[in-house]
Amino acid sequence: MSVYTLVSESQLAEWLRNYSVGSLAALEPVAAGIENTNYFVTTTQGRYVLTLFERLPAAELPFYLGLMAHLARHGIPCPAPMADLSDQYLSSLNGKPAALVTRLSGSSIEHPGVHECAELGALLARMHLAGRSYPEYLDNPRGPKWWRAAARAVRPLLDADARALLDEELRFQALYRFPDLPRGPVHADLFRDNALFENGRISGVIDFYFAGVDCLLFDLAVCANDWCLVDAERDRSLHPTRVRALLQAYAALRPFSALERGAWPVMLRAAALRFWLSRLHDFHLPRAGVLVHAHDPAHFRDVLTLRAAASESLWVD
Amino acid sequence: MSVYTLVSESQLAEWLRNYSVGSLAALEPVAAGIENTNYFVTTTQGRYVLTLFERLPAAELPFYLGLMAHLARHGIPCPAPMADLSDQYLSSLNGKPAALVTRLSGSSIEHPGVHECAELGALLARMHLAGRSYPEYLDNPRGPKWWRAAARAVRPLLDADARALLDEELRFQALYRFPDLPRGPVHADLFRDNALFENGRISGVIDFYFAGVDCLLFDLAVCANDWCLVDAERDRSLHPTRVRALLQAYAALRPFSALERGAWPVMLRAAALRFWLSRLHDFHLPRAGVLVHAHDPAHFRDVLTLRAAASESLWVD
Repeated sequence: MSVYTLVSESQLAEWLRNYSVGSLAALEPVAAGIENTNYFVTTTQGRYVLTLFERLPAAELPFYLGLMAHLARHGIPCPAPMADLSDQYLSSLNGKPAALVTRLSGSSIEHPGVHECAELGALLARMHLAGRSYPEYLDNPRGPKWWRAAARAVRPLLDADARALLDEELRFQALYRFPDLPRGPVHADLFRDNALFENGRISGVIDFYFAGVDCLLFDLAVCANDWCLVDAERDRSLHPTRVRALLQAYAALRPFSALERGAWPVMLRAAALRFWLSRLHDFHLPRAGVLVHAHDPAHFRDVLTLRAAASESLWVD
Repeated sequence: MSVYTLVSESQLAEWLRNYSVGSLAALEPVAAGIENTNYFVTTTQGRYVLTLFERLPAAELPFYLGLMAHLARHGIPCPAPMADLSDQYLSSLNGKPAALVTRLSGSSIEHPGVHECAELGALLARMHLAGRSYPEYLDNPRGPKWWRAAARAVRPLLDADARALLDEELRFQALYRFPDLPRGPVHADLFRDNALFENGRISGVIDFYFAGVDCLLFDLAVCANDWCLVDAERDRSLHPTRVRALLQAYAALRPFSALERGAWPVMLRAAALRFWLSRLHDFHLPRAGVLVHAHDPAHFRDVLTLRAAASESLWVD
């Protein structure tokens, strides 16, 4: 459960007077999420999500909210922030930075098939194309600079094998800088639970609070490593048909450059490294007051090992 | 029927490649409307309305589209313009200025009751409060300056009684300038057919192409003259309970100033005059190529006569 800050109905009803979204009808805490406090808010006008930002750096919030607003007005089914009567997306409630966004319908899919992976690929391409005109900039907060800082923090806590894997991957990734890969705003955390489906279509992409500017290909690699596993428990290698569906549906709207095709195996490793590191960090160095159960880092250690082996095999073959 | 410019499926499919709204699934011409060509557009993502602007001055279009976008991101249920890949709301198609906006659900109500009038009042107040932070300016294109120009054009075509009514009303209105009434963007054409209802709530306010900056009270007067008639055919005096519902629901969110309360009878006459004049104009001086049947001007002549008599009676009593 992830409600760190309590909001009462009377507080919220008063706060909503700063908005044009109608009056409060219902308020319900949301259990999911780690970083923020979320409530489902129903008004006489519609359904919204109220987010109180508990830990995100305040300087980053305008980037996230502006990106969601930008994508929403380009037709991407993402939460649209509501502007208040001062025309601001970011407000405050109970001493926390707070925002009200539209609530999207649909539900996430635990076992996506080829069709869902193709839907995701097309959605990612549309999102990347729409994001190109977004004028704000935030370096991916979980990019290479963060990898190195996180690696320093967790390295002493790892066994020898894990330490060797980590060192080797950091060394390997450092060989690759991709200044010529197409870059832009990426979601960077589009796991299955951040996509909502309805009638076989993606009806929502949520939780943009790890977004930043990075290689567009990174988004695809993050998705492939979560959506396209042969079996998330028993075989974390990539399911070729689903990966193909993801990439082909994407390429139909934004064709890949030759450089991107070449960088794919490296990007899959980078995406695995990023999540292995954050899960190691959350597992070994949990932050005070975080109530959720940390994910087992072993999952992404295995994903990284498999992606590294697969990319090495490209040379051996 | 109001399709002046034909758009084929293949043209539209190609045009939609400039957007991030998914690919074309269905295209259907819309019969309603006078000023523009409209199509319902269904894509893999959602439902939209394509509008080709046939007659509106190109310089005014950014005001309308920007206003809809502004209101939509404040939670007002109005069509939200979709930005294209160049981040523009206004594009062109078949040589006409064109825009794609979200299509809202619901349907209009021919005989609104007290509940619907209260819904409308609350919606208008929210819209006016949200509109205050809209930074663009366009003088109401059907304001006093236009009244005088339209009156000059139609006056020679009127019978003596109508001419006397028109002259007297222009003289009367010229006595009233309301520089201190709250002003802001107003819809200025929120007749019953421009409001959609769903489950007893307003689910959409459409057709902002007569919007402009004017007295906020003008919007209420336009609505009262259409929504609150005792009987639109037989008795066009105002139904006091419905007018009260409209004004009270509005005032609960934006209380009226004393000046606004005093100006109400004059504003009802102004709103009647504006529509009498445009219907006279459309009836006697139809524009080439306009295919719709013009409304009978007699309706608003009667409304104006009744409002004038009612406002005079305030002094007689």
